[in-house]
Amino acid sequence: MSHPTKTSASTLSEFQIIERYFAPLASQVALGLKDDAACFTPPPGHDLIVSKDVLVADRHFFADDAAADIAFKALSVNVSDLAAKGATPQHYLLGLVLPKEFAGHHWLKGFAYGLESAQKTYGIHLVGGDTVATEGPLCISITAIGYAVEGAMIKRSEAKAGDDIYVSGTLGDAAFGLQAIKTGQGQTVEFSKRYHRPTARPELGKALQGIASAAADVSDGLLADARHICQASGIGARLFQAKLPLSEAGVKALEKDATLWPLVFSGGDDYEIVFMADPSNAAAVKKISQTLGLQITKIGVAIPGSAVELVDCTDKLVQVAGEGFEHF
Amino acid sequence: MSHPTKTSASTLSEFQIIERYFAPLASQVALGLKDDAACFTPPPGHDLIVSKDVLVADRHFFADDAAADIAFKALSVNVSDLAAKGATPQHYLLGLVLPKEFAGHHWLKGFAYGLESAQKTYGIHLVGGDTVATEGPLCISITAIGYAVEGAMIKRSEAKAGDDIYVSGTLGDAAFGLQAIKTGQGQTVEFSKRYHRPTARPELGKALQGIASAAADVSDGLLADARHICQASGIGARLFQAKLPLSEAGVKALEKDATLWPLVFSGGDDYEIVFMADPSNAAAVKKISQTLGLQITKIGVAIPGSAVELVDCTDKLVQVAGEGFEHF
Repeated sequence: MSHPTKTSASTLSEFQIIERYFAPLASQVALGLKDDAACFTPPPGHDLIVSKDVLVADRHFFADDAAADIAFKALSVNVSDLAAKGATPQHYLLGLVLPKEFAGHHWLKGFAYGLESAQKTYGIHLVGGDTVATEGPLCISITAIGYAVEGAMIKRSEAKAGDDIYVSGTLGDAAFGLQAIKTGQGQTVEFSKRYHRPTARPELGKALQGIASAAADVSDGLLADARHICQASGIGARLFQAKLPLSEAGVKALEKDATLWPLVFSGGDDYEIVFMADPSNAAAVKKISQTLGLQITKIGVAIPGSAVELVDCTDKLVQVAGEGFEHF
Repeated sequence: MSHPTKTSASTLSEFQIIERYFAPLASQVALGLKDDAACFTPPPGHDLIVSKDVLVADRHFFADDAAADIAFKALSVNVSDLAAKGATPQHYLLGLVLPKEFAGHHWLKGFAYGLESAQKTYGIHLVGGDTVATEGPLCISITAIGYAVEGAMIKRSEAKAGDDIYVSGTLGDAAFGLQAIKTGQGQTVEFSKRYHRPTARPELGKALQGIASAAADVSDGLLADARHICQASGIGARLFQAKLPLSEAGVKALEKDATLWPLVFSGGDDYEIVFMADPSNAAAVKKISQTLGLQITKIGVAIPGSAVELVDCTDKLVQVAGEGFEHF
């Protein structure tokens, strides 16, 4: 394309970057990343589930985070969307908008290593993409592609009043980690890991097919993502603060400083799955939790109307200032 | 996700942008852009062809270009990759990294209008994406998805020595247009249109299935893209300068200033298709040209070796300084 710029000695060309760092990550269907497009076919009887999330430096991660962490997180964030739909991750395309100072061996080696780690974690492979230089911040645009049995995708729109509301894992840890980075206080290994290396839950999503009536991943914050389900399903939700699952480190942090509570329900970056299910599926949900060795906690109920309420242990509504991450 | 920022009065939120401008562009499989992912299935007997190109302001377009032109070009560039593979465009996902000053009604209305025009031109629909704010330049990351009959994708890698080399349309016009913007001289309606509103060639790509041995779209420049085919196929190419197809405006520009010639073979942004075909397919290529009402010109031959040569009418090699667009 147009607007040529000069290549400096320490900066790699797009083709060098692809050949050295990205081609080794590519699956067969990517034709060695040497063609204009990837070519593949889902297995018979399967739908394609496709999602796209863009991450921008100093909005979704810090530019000076370890390159491997940035890559792992970018892929996790995208796999998390597929996971919430019950899809098995398969392929991804990577759009990398790269400031010149990142286009050297050191950063790219770390970035490719992080992608490789995430690929192994999720069983996903690179099938294509584009790398362009920028004068602006690092941006990572990933399109993730998964397969789900035909018609089995878990939507946001099919929950109904009376359904139980569950969430996987623990909430708030990533937000505590971010807060600790900002304030320079209260960092723990657990918080830092959850913030820098979040893990998506594709096994859970897959297991929830036919069990969950609706699901979303917790990326914007529990209340915001629960609201997304409620709006799509035409229902409300009552969530109980006392039931929100916390890590040991989270409990300690909140004992020290109760003003951190909003990070639990509005902090975001959890990459857990919030889902709703008919009460008759309670035993099935419990079994999934046992089989996967993954904590799944009932945190509320779907109610008629459209309000998303958070109530404390005295049955009072918790006053929520901001509800989650807004991109503008 | 994390790092909340405040929303100013004149700036739309991500959800407002989606609801007002992007949801109307979405196809059924996108679930109204209200879910985390799109869900679709290619028709039986078809492969998915998937490509991704990222465009960055002031590298691939100018930030103050008309919003509708920016959108149309971004989609054309991506459809062009599918076209060169013989795929029929179907779906796309849009990753928009948007500076705050663009996140108002005026720009977004124009941008959505440009997307709509391109959707109608190519029969493609929006199925998902992500919009995030940035302090940096506008970036547009599109993943385009097409269908091709199983196994019929035209690769870069299957040309052989002795094949004829063809290109569609005319070359250099977009590069002349860019040059005219930079110098303030020599702009014509034709050049400007080719630079700001390039048109991809999906009908040609589809018609070339089973006829072309290899193909690529001319985005980086004729020589660079011909070299991509040659490298993937393990051959060389001899191209004839005198045969390169020019528009009337292009002929006039070169008569005035012969130093502009390199823009014809290295300028890029043409979004024509360069392809190779066995000489026995010459009549079939001619028929495709007639059927589509599209100029297709034989510009050279594939040769053994790996050199990509451009020869003038006295059989001398043309000296080529830079070969095409390098992204760093």
